[in-house]
Amino acid sequence: MNAIGIICEYNPFHLGHARMLEGLRRQYDAPLVCAMSGNFVQRGDAAVAHKHARGEMAVRCGADLVLELPTPWAMASAERFADGGVALLTSTGVVSHLAFGSECGDLTALQAAEAALSRPELMPRIRQLLAQGMAYAPARQQAAEELGAPPRMLSRPNDILAIEYLKALRRQKAPMEPLAVLRQGAGHDGTPSGDTASASYLRTLLRSGRTDEALSYLPAPAAQVLRRELALGQAPADLSYCQRAILARLRQLREEDFLPYDGGKEGLYHRFYQAVRTSCSPEALLETAKTKRYPTSRLRRMLLSAWLDVTPPAGGIPYLRVLAANERGRDLLRQMQRQGAPVLTRPGDVSRLGPAAETLFRQESLWTDLYVLTYPQSSRSVCGSDWRTNPILL
Amino acid sequence: MNAIGIICEYNPFHLGHARMLEGLRRQYDAPLVCAMSGNFVQRGDAAVAHKHARGEMAVRCGADLVLELPTPWAMASAERFADGGVALLTSTGVVSHLAFGSECGDLTALQAAEAALSRPELMPRIRQLLAQGMAYAPARQQAAEELGAPPRMLSRPNDILAIEYLKALRRQKAPMEPLAVLRQGAGHDGTPSGDTASASYLRTLLRSGRTDEALSYLPAPAAQVLRRELALGQAPADLSYCQRAILARLRQLREEDFLPYDGGKEGLYHRFYQAVRTSCSPEALLETAKTKRYPTSRLRRMLLSAWLDVTPPAGGIPYLRVLAANERGRDLLRQMQRQGAPVLTRPGDVSRLGPAAETLFRQESLWTDLYVLTYPQSSRSVCGSDWRTNPILL
Repeated sequence: MNAIGIICEYNPFHLGHARMLEGLRRQYDAPLVCAMSGNFVQRGDAAVAHKHARGEMAVRCGADLVLELPTPWAMASAERFADGGVALLTSTGVVSHLAFGSECGDLTALQAAEAALSRPELMPRIRQLLAQGMAYAPARQQAAEELGAPPRMLSRPNDILAIEYLKALRRQKAPMEPLAVLRQGAGHDGTPSGDTASASYLRTLLRSGRTDEALSYLPAPAAQVLRRELALGQAPADLSYCQRAILARLRQLREEDFLPYDGGKEGLYHRFYQAVRTSCSPEALLETAKTKRYPTSRLRRMLLSAWLDVTPPAGGIPYLRVLAANERGRDLLRQMQRQGAPVLTRPGDVSRLGPAAETLFRQESLWTDLYVLTYPQSSRSVCGSDWRTNPILL
Repeated sequence: MNAIGIICEYNPFHLGHARMLEGLRRQYDAPLVCAMSGNFVQRGDAAVAHKHARGEMAVRCGADLVLELPTPWAMASAERFADGGVALLTSTGVVSHLAFGSECGDLTALQAAEAALSRPELMPRIRQLLAQGMAYAPARQQAAEELGAPPRMLSRPNDILAIEYLKALRRQKAPMEPLAVLRQGAGHDGTPSGDTASASYLRTLLRSGRTDEALSYLPAPAAQVLRRELALGQAPADLSYCQRAILARLRQLREEDFLPYDGGKEGLYHRFYQAVRTSCSPEALLETAKTKRYPTSRLRRMLLSAWLDVTPPAGGIPYLRVLAANERGRDLLRQMQRQGAPVLTRPGDVSRLGPAAETLFRQESLWTDLYVLTYPQSSRSVCGSDWRTNPILL
């Protein structure tokens, strides 16, 4: 075993995350490499703290190296998110295992579900069920179970994501072994159990000002980082500061302008445009556009993609941007560099990695210039931080 | 005398405005037709109340007909603002006189200043003085005085605007006689004197919540309209609600994207782009970009034009949109229609006025969709109000 990869968001990093890293450390003697969403996350939201702070939290709590999953993959469907994470970890050239939490913790069951989802009969059957008026998620679950997936494997968020990782590993023929870790404690969106609260619960606490309560669910070193960010007015970042900014931009787009942000190309953009014209808030817009077929998370991503102008990536991920690392992570980075991996440590060096890398980095930098507008303290919302921020080295 | 035209903003309509209309009524027996800025005004700001409310205030206080000066002329340099107002009133075909307030109230002096400003020697001399490091306004004043303008004619805002009206009348060979009215009471930006306060002072009162104090400077019928708008959460409209919206859009523009909003084409756009990248608020941006040469009002217009995407008009004003009218105004409208003036009463009829009219109206409607985001009550910020709102008929 050379290194263990983890695909994550750490939004924010909490005791459940710390426990998973601790367990991996106890069981294996290998560096832990995280592919972590940058400033925007998979559910179509601004991360509660910026990427360097979240990377620092992870390294202070057991990770060795945190790499940025760029926005076009981080703020995408579960499938593209998983694809991006697996591709990023593969291109390090040093990650031999992929660890992921799941509610069932049963690799065999997850693999059986993944095999069912890869059968060519799946999509026709899903389409049949959709035509009968079923929503997408239950239709997919029923079709998969008919094709041999174990029951209820597609109903719990971490199981679903785990299956996406397995799919991505297969599709990319990635040279990584899966390690299914049993997820303990609070459910993904649930209320706390013991000292474990879900990240989404913690975000709610933070955004409603219940700071101390939120911080009590974080490992002390992570709490310290987050407390610093709160004191600086850089957290909790909250899209609600940008409600009018989002509406203003969406109102300036014509109907056809929404097409590039409509992942499915099924005509959702038409519905979305109509909702823009009748809504006085992003929440009302999502409520108006929502149907059984189009879940809110997808609409949220579309909304945020349209605001930021994030379109689906054309090629692969052209750089491995280091957000944070400790000494062990730095050893790994040197090993990666020797093997020719496109490691990006200092932002100014991005042009050496070629035009695709430069183009993506420029975009990412503009997205960050919008992300900082979600800070509570508007005086902290300076432009260009992506070009100025070096990795956090511990 | 057929009808008297007035170019105005009424932002908001106050006792000074009422007195001017009263004076014209006392002196002449002619209908009063206003060419009034729509939702955005000349200093690069959102009007404190929407255009139909301001039109209603004017008609309740002595005007007979209020027509909308569209945004590309309303939110422009004094020169283009005057040009637009004069063109709009000319195209009614019924306005025989143009009345305007001025600090000097002396038509002969204003005409002498206008003649000096029309001399071909003017611009070379201004350029000389600019090259010596003088700011634009004093350079223009000195050059004009050297060419025969009476002293201090270019230092007071209403005198300056009056001269622009005279210039526009001459340039367009407009068939309207000028009527210079002595402006009494408070200065344009000054503090109140007696019961007269300037519109800018009233906006400050309104935007700082000193509502009753502000309303005491309005004629009772205007105060009633404004009180209604305040109660609805539609006033005081305030760009500060859209600070992050403005920053977000400006941050998404590349340097060359600013060029169309740079009236002077002198490279200000370059300076402006740099200021965008270093500023965390629109005010800080204006402060950064400001120089002796580029006054804040011009930068404000550039900022707002870039946010709204308002570019200089290519042709003339293709319609006369009625915002408000009383019975006498409606008589005048019938007369205008008989003469073939492009009167627009119901928004849905705009396509009958040709493609230029339709294009401008669509743009105006989108600008209004952004204007409503400056309302205090975001639930009032519905799209499409330009298409739904008929004139206020009293």
